[in-house]
Amino acid sequence: MTENAFPPSRRSDVAPFIAMDVLAQAAELEAEGRRIIHMEVGQPSAPAPKAALASARMALEHGRLGYTEALGIRALRNALSAHYRKTYGVDVPARRIMATTGSSAGFNLAFLAAFDPGDRVVLTAPGYPAYRNILKALGLVPVEIEVGAETRWSLTPEHLEAAQKDGPVKGVLVASPANPTGTMMTPDALEDLIRYCDDAGIWFISDEIYHGLTYDGEQKTALETSQNVIIVNSFSKYYCMTGWRIGWLVLPEHLVRPTERIAQSLYISPPELSQIAAVAALETVQELEAVKAGYAANRALLLEGLPRIGLDRLLPVDGAFYIYADISRYSSDSLDFARRMLHEAGVAATPGVDFDPVHGREFLRFSFAGAHEDMQAALERLSGFLS
Amino acid sequence: MTENAFPPSRRSDVAPFIAMDVLAQAAELEAEGRRIIHMEVGQPSAPAPKAALASARMALEHGRLGYTEALGIRALRNALSAHYRKTYGVDVPARRIMATTGSSAGFNLAFLAAFDPGDRVVLTAPGYPAYRNILKALGLVPVEIEVGAETRWSLTPEHLEAAQKDGPVKGVLVASPANPTGTMMTPDALEDLIRYCDDAGIWFISDEIYHGLTYDGEQKTALETSQNVIIVNSFSKYYCMTGWRIGWLVLPEHLVRPTERIAQSLYISPPELSQIAAVAALETVQELEAVKAGYAANRALLLEGLPRIGLDRLLPVDGAFYIYADISRYSSDSLDFARRMLHEAGVAATPGVDFDPVHGREFLRFSFAGAHEDMQAALERLSGFLS
Repeated sequence: MTENAFPPSRRSDVAPFIAMDVLAQAAELEAEGRRIIHMEVGQPSAPAPKAALASARMALEHGRLGYTEALGIRALRNALSAHYRKTYGVDVPARRIMATTGSSAGFNLAFLAAFDPGDRVVLTAPGYPAYRNILKALGLVPVEIEVGAETRWSLTPEHLEAAQKDGPVKGVLVASPANPTGTMMTPDALEDLIRYCDDAGIWFISDEIYHGLTYDGEQKTALETSQNVIIVNSFSKYYCMTGWRIGWLVLPEHLVRPTERIAQSLYISPPELSQIAAVAALETVQELEAVKAGYAANRALLLEGLPRIGLDRLLPVDGAFYIYADISRYSSDSLDFARRMLHEAGVAATPGVDFDPVHGREFLRFSFAGAHEDMQAALERLSGFLS
Repeated sequence: MTENAFPPSRRSDVAPFIAMDVLAQAAELEAEGRRIIHMEVGQPSAPAPKAALASARMALEHGRLGYTEALGIRALRNALSAHYRKTYGVDVPARRIMATTGSSAGFNLAFLAAFDPGDRVVLTAPGYPAYRNILKALGLVPVEIEVGAETRWSLTPEHLEAAQKDGPVKGVLVASPANPTGTMMTPDALEDLIRYCDDAGIWFISDEIYHGLTYDGEQKTALETSQNVIIVNSFSKYYCMTGWRIGWLVLPEHLVRPTERIAQSLYISPPELSQIAAVAALETVQELEAVKAGYAANRALLLEGLPRIGLDRLLPVDGAFYIYADISRYSSDSLDFARRMLHEAGVAATPGVDFDPVHGREFLRFSFAGAHEDMQAALERLSGFLS
């Protein structure tokens, strides 16, 4: 038999997540002995909170880690319910909260539970590429709307009005703070958009993974405006637990059981050790605020330093740990530019085409979640590379 | 807004994984102080191997756990490649091996990479319910073929010939040892089926999760017959690592990159701690063989004891840790029977309808992965309940 008798599926022809490819290239250079500064993946350099590590160690002593209920362990769901009261002053019963294997599983489950093949879902461009890729893999139709400075890189009800002229819109996915831009919606703009969706019967999916990491502006959960929204969140960013693959969903009551049924087959349950550690992570304050202060220092350093070395067209960095930089003065092929920067300067960043196939050719995303010394070294290396 | 403006998707209307529902009911009874004997979930009672726990503890000391490459860490992929040489004498390069978040992710990725919406995939009935549910969630069409004693509960080329009369068959999924039956295909029957698929251009997906746990008959990997097959495997069963959510795929070379692209968006990467622990688990022999000897003792106990107390119609238990018992003498509603058995006798087992919506009404699946004392206690409790 030749390979042709066994072709890959058509739907596997999704775009690669280029940030992950850059990571792989960087790993190869490191295997050759090169020292690479990682600004390509949105990953804290700090470890998980001490209390989370201690909880995990205790669970390992006990030894037996098994399947949990598909919705997650009760301790975690209760702790998350308390988190909503404490952080936002909103009352979310634990029965509407579901632990997931990272926000990745949260998106997959939310999309499967809310949408059927062919449904159109609105995203921003630029935006997190996995949104688009997961939607496509599941037979859904991403409708990408270019956003820019005129709406502060946010979607508006007018955008949705326009999108509906081409066919019904079944859902909208919004992240605030956003990836790759780091921009946030104002509380009013967020509320307007949610109310519009509520009235129009459009699912509003709120990616709140960068909550906790805001420097400018006020952070609101979509739950403050409506109970029909779906919240996707994770312990990966604020809680520094990327590799643990643990996140959560908040669902409207009637969507819990359908989502649970899908999760039983698709995931069985999230990793138990990560669920246990996450409970402790939720109780950590000082240590995580210190990590955030480090990001704030990195942000200040780069917002001062990047313009000095020639990258002076940056989007407002309200939150998250990304700087989305216009590189059009140097290149209109961000993929090639990122490759050269990696090989010549040893600095890994993500080409904008990951986030926006059209305008992303002229942008790079820099993550400043790394160590402060690394950010300083990156500025030096880039200074030489750019000149 | 009423809920009706936000209906769940049609495809979320999959059957629940009833084993998980039984687990939830059992947890409720336990919260009330009842002592339940768990024979409902296919989960070893032994902890992960000592070396795996030690590796995990060391990684926690180091502290920082992050995203890995989507294909998994190289140490694990290399160790799995060595595992195929050592266990089966077959040469599988590490580049064809991909770490996954349990076999659950393996199935999801394999189905997405190989099949497009509407494609028909053959399964056995009875069979693992998640196969059917994941296929449906992804827009694929499960074609369930009833198997019985006449083919030793296995699919044959004749079954596939017949299924193709109703439309093209794009894939076949086989587990040997199987769940829920514990039966194995003979090496000849397995080879015949793979060769038929190879010639017909039908994807052969081999679920080898129960490899290592065989009591009768010879264990063969599908890779010994063809390089076009997809292997799904996991550390959950033989290696006692269910809650760690770590497994792997072996893919034909040309399917690696499409599968990697999907994994980058759908999973980012499997949990890093679990990947690290899995490397150590692969090197453990004695400890795991002792666990297996315990299953063998449980199996012997139940194969002698169950017929004595009235359950004498059992399928051959070649491997895995399941006994599939015909309960038609007591009930033709296995769901109701399992509920009564849980509440009255405190023994949790899985109703056959999970595995076979038709004939499963007259079967229960008992997992004997638990402690030997529990199996003894179960026999006593069931003796009272059945009489």
